[in-house]
Amino acid sequence: MKFSSKTLENAVEAFATLPSIGRKSALRLALHLIKDSTSKSSKLASALVDLENNINYCQICFNISDESTCEICKEPQRNRAIVCVVESVRDVMAIEETTQFNGLYHVLGGVISPMDGIGPADLTIVDLEERVKQGNVMELIMAISPTIEGDTTIYYLSKQLEKYEIEISTIARGVSFGGELEYADELTLGRSIVSRIPYTSAHQ
Amino acid sequence: MKFSSKTLENAVEAFATLPSIGRKSALRLALHLIKDSTSKSSKLASALVDLENNINYCQICFNISDESTCEICKEPQRNRAIVCVVESVRDVMAIEETTQFNGLYHVLGGVISPMDGIGPADLTIVDLEERVKQGNVMELIMAISPTIEGDTTIYYLSKQLEKYEIEISTIARGVSFGGELEYADELTLGRSIVSRIPYTSAHQ
Repeated sequence: MKFSSKTLENAVEAFATLPSIGRKSALRLALHLIKDSTSKSSKLASALVDLENNINYCQICFNISDESTCEICKEPQRNRAIVCVVESVRDVMAIEETTQFNGLYHVLGGVISPMDGIGPADLTIVDLEERVKQGNVMELIMAISPTIEGDTTIYYLSKQLEKYEIEISTIARGVSFGGELEYADELTLGRSIVSRIPYTSAHQ
Repeated sequence: MKFSSKTLENAVEAFATLPSIGRKSALRLALHLIKDSTSKSSKLASALVDLENNINYCQICFNISDESTCEICKEPQRNRAIVCVVESVRDVMAIEETTQFNGLYHVLGGVISPMDGIGPADLTIVDLEERVKQGNVMELIMAISPTIEGDTTIYYLSKQLEKYEIEISTIARGVSFGGELEYADELTLGRSIVSRIPYTSAHQ
């Protein structure tokens, strides 16, 4: 791509460093911003500077937060005995959207993945153990993606925390709601049969 | 979407104002930038501030430029007798990529489209006539997307400029009807410039 303007080129290069934005999309975005008369550019620019300087992590759950304790950990009506362990901030948001969970969270920051060079020390596992050690937590719900790495992480955590008197559960795995049975993969379908639930309790 | 951080929310909102970026993609981008340690955020921010403040248009051809005359208009080896009339800066870049054209450009800034409230006065048509009036231009190549609006614009220009002794051609219709110029492959676009047709015979 040959640019007639260095300023434009810089903006395209900067956009193209973002995931899933190629150079054509980047050019489209930059030209859109040039044409725009509502100062979208400077609004985005100041939001980005803020993002770089003002993002904190909650010191309890490691959720993204503007202050040292996040909004969720601050809410007094939450059940502090149940902690949902997730990989990322996006998972916290996804679970919050369901409005089905009233406990606290713990964001691991990823899963154990030797292939990607991510070991237990790269995650917030020590901090999770510290929370458990304090004695207020009764149950940990492992809401971690059902992958090899996810399963490894759950296994590691269960071993690491077995000396404490807490319950460890994982989110139910099975055929998704509204999904066609014939399109479910074999592993999921197989497991959902093995770990079937009594009809009444499933619908209470 | 429920955010645990106002800073994050602002960044997501700002990204989501861009075309073809929804709130889920915006969140993905923002979280990517938070995780990133190479100060992508601030680089993008400063590129955007530059974009808002330092973008000029070439006073000859209305291409985007850092100075008052663009790189293309400045090149001494270009054939100044042939001017390629295009809708937008993206089209200039697409044609430059083909390396099949050695003349100058004229960026209209759009096409005549009554439906969108764009009339001849909203485009750089007066400036194009001024260039033609000066007497150096021998040929205008209409490299405008083959749509109803594009054809209307070519027709309007041909009527407007018929009093001057210049040749008006359109790029060959190797480009599919209803297609956007910027998505045409280089070969097709390049050939369509080489085998351009005089405007009148093309419409007989």
